[in-house]
Amino acid sequence: MLDAAILTIGDELLSGEVVDGHAAELARFLSSRGVCVRRIVSVGDAVAEIAGAVRAAVRRPLLLVTGGLGPTGDDRTVEGVARGTGRAVVRHPDAEEHLRRRLAGRGRGLSNANLRQAELPEGAVVLGNPLGTAPAFSLEHDGCLIVCLPGVPAELRAILAELLGPLLERRFRLQPRPAIRLRVFGITEARLATLLETELEAPAWLRIAYRPRFPEILLTLEAPGPEQERELESLAARIEGLLGPRVYVRGEIELPAVVGALLRERGKRLALAVSCTGGLIAKLLTDTPGSSEFLDSAAVTYSNAAKERMLGVPGTLIQTHGAVSEPVAAAMARGARERAGADYALAVTGIAGPGGGTPAKPVGTVYIGLADPQEVFVRRFSFPGWSRAAVRRVTAYTALSALRLLLLSGNPWFQPREERSSDPPPGVAGA
Amino acid sequence: MLDAAILTIGDELLSGEVVDGHAAELARFLSSRGVCVRRIVSVGDAVAEIAGAVRAAVRRPLLLVTGGLGPTGDDRTVEGVARGTGRAVVRHPDAEEHLRRRLAGRGRGLSNANLRQAELPEGAVVLGNPLGTAPAFSLEHDGCLIVCLPGVPAELRAILAELLGPLLERRFRLQPRPAIRLRVFGITEARLATLLETELEAPAWLRIAYRPRFPEILLTLEAPGPEQERELESLAARIEGLLGPRVYVRGEIELPAVVGALLRERGKRLALAVSCTGGLIAKLLTDTPGSSEFLDSAAVTYSNAAKERMLGVPGTLIQTHGAVSEPVAAAMARGARERAGADYALAVTGIAGPGGGTPAKPVGTVYIGLADPQEVFVRRFSFPGWSRAAVRRVTAYTALSALRLLLLSGNPWFQPREERSSDPPPGVAGA
Repeated sequence: MLDAAILTIGDELLSGEVVDGHAAELARFLSSRGVCVRRIVSVGDAVAEIAGAVRAAVRRPLLLVTGGLGPTGDDRTVEGVARGTGRAVVRHPDAEEHLRRRLAGRGRGLSNANLRQAELPEGAVVLGNPLGTAPAFSLEHDGCLIVCLPGVPAELRAILAELLGPLLERRFRLQPRPAIRLRVFGITEARLATLLETELEAPAWLRIAYRPRFPEILLTLEAPGPEQERELESLAARIEGLLGPRVYVRGEIELPAVVGALLRERGKRLALAVSCTGGLIAKLLTDTPGSSEFLDSAAVTYSNAAKERMLGVPGTLIQTHGAVSEPVAAAMARGARERAGADYALAVTGIAGPGGGTPAKPVGTVYIGLADPQEVFVRRFSFPGWSRAAVRRVTAYTALSALRLLLLSGNPWFQPREERSSDPPPGVAGA
Repeated sequence: MLDAAILTIGDELLSGEVVDGHAAELARFLSSRGVCVRRIVSVGDAVAEIAGAVRAAVRRPLLLVTGGLGPTGDDRTVEGVARGTGRAVVRHPDAEEHLRRRLAGRGRGLSNANLRQAELPEGAVVLGNPLGTAPAFSLEHDGCLIVCLPGVPAELRAILAELLGPLLERRFRLQPRPAIRLRVFGITEARLATLLETELEAPAWLRIAYRPRFPEILLTLEAPGPEQERELESLAARIEGLLGPRVYVRGEIELPAVVGALLRERGKRLALAVSCTGGLIAKLLTDTPGSSEFLDSAAVTYSNAAKERMLGVPGTLIQTHGAVSEPVAAAMARGARERAGADYALAVTGIAGPGGGTPAKPVGTVYIGLADPQEVFVRRFSFPGWSRAAVRRVTAYTALSALRLLLLSGNPWFQPREERSSDPPPGVAGA
């Protein structure tokens, strides 16, 4: 396995003003190609610090450097890398050409400030930059390939995909490893790990990565090379069999987008009727463009009067059972569907906390209701001891997951009620 | 100034599965006490790697280490720090006592797995852990104070505030520096920096940090010591004078919570009527507990039929002017306020993109309407070239900011319409 180091540069990292997302992005990029990242180092915009970090890192065969390649005086990466590798900084014709073309595309000429970005360590090879002015470049030094990348997020991503991937393939014969990403909702990370350990019978080469992104888990299965691609596929299918509907998709699509796509494909329209989650479910569903094709409306009915006025929930029902109750959730779903003339309605009423709980209905008590053309389904869920934000988020995902199951199978729940008592709260650590 | 290094430990950092938020949190903590963080290093859960990183870091007077202090075999930080400082790992009576008390509080006894957390490098001083089992500890080595902190976020935060702060004060006479945080919305970071450079006449000691958190900017003013506290205060007041209503609060409260608190204080109720932002504004307002006191309801009216049905917007108005228009925004605000019997209503209709734009109303065109007991205000905003998520977010903040101004002054806009043409889109880079 090829060893690598990552060096990120910027005073804003050392003051804590910015969280270092670039390091993680580069690490993921390298890991997915089978590179073993041994160390991530961050230093400020100071030539001596950068040079020292470069000197320490070039013992490994690969060093990725990002940040500090802009046109201002604060940007000292070129000088630092040059000093760390004992080279001069020189005007680089390929970099100048890259800048000239890039600026011409914006109808501008080369200024002196821009020309600074054409000055690179001697012997650098310009990789370019599909989106910005600062060119990425590489440098061979003592058996280490140093690659310097601009820190603008969109530029960095484009360079990784279009330039660095092919470079690593040429230089180290590295290729993206076969990988399958499963998105899982409705099981804790600990239970998922135990289940796969005891039931999967995975071969030794299989790498399983759990990436909790509350309240779901991104599960990545990785094989060392293309020879294992078919077996990887059958392992993924086995996991899908073990987890059933808890795997809601393969790939990078999020649950709200999966639900939205299902509605759109089937030409069905949805109305929402919610209280405790505020606008979260509507927000999640409309994060994806084109949501007007399936979302009619959402009634966020915080007050009891709004539940009566906007959804037709009888005031007596609220007085008798409370706003957080099975009959009210059912009436909200029914009312939303009928008033909107929609195919489906999703209703949520609950106590997100921290106040408002009672012994019978403690904080974290949530009722989810669903109405389809035939029926109204309601179930009570408990997320005790969770924060307000966590209750709201896991409620939104539980509701969307139920809607997905209803669309797919006509039954919104993972399993019949009898089994529910032993069911853990759907979700993972990290709330 | 005291130099420090930060070492974060965990395989999940090197694979990129987890973004290193701890490093930033520790860096902010140290910076706010005037410590200069020189380097942040991340290594995996391997004793040799940890030991190597510790050996390199102890040249500075302070080293904070976090991660890898749990009870499982993956947690190698104690061994790594011991090897890096040439010490044995021994059972520590204070750590055992800490564990015993913590577990007794949960009605449990000490298991062998727990006892592993009582084994520390020889000579360690136990600091404790107000929330968890893994005790934080410190170690003096060759003039360097090494402090090892558990990586569970809530525990880490409690230890910083309750244990590490006082320790740094005793050991280095470090105190939190006087600092004032202003939250700013409605100006770009570049313009803000220029304005402060040209107009503020800041003393040389003033440290200004800009932390963009789209679409707002967190502006921190910091003084080296208590002697400058009064002048710091008057500098903050001067900035508030320069920026006017663009400074929406001092401190850590976010704009939606500021608006919610204003409504609550005044005993006023709000209704929302929105389309393109989906449920985002309702979500933001209800992130804070107690929002049921001021939020009556939100009508997320994606379809034209929903605008008619839920808000009473005349269908002819939509046909004549389009759903994204000044008259429709006004009718949405008026309808929402009247139907809910609320004091105020906030309406938003716009084109978040990427589709749906026209030459007259390109993507990023948004109308914001506000109704109070006397009047309805509407204004058009343009956020051209921004992503869907950015348009929605900046729209939500612009709407909430307008509501805040309406509550405070009776006028929702920063300035009269005549001046608006030269106004930049409110917001900052990083969309």
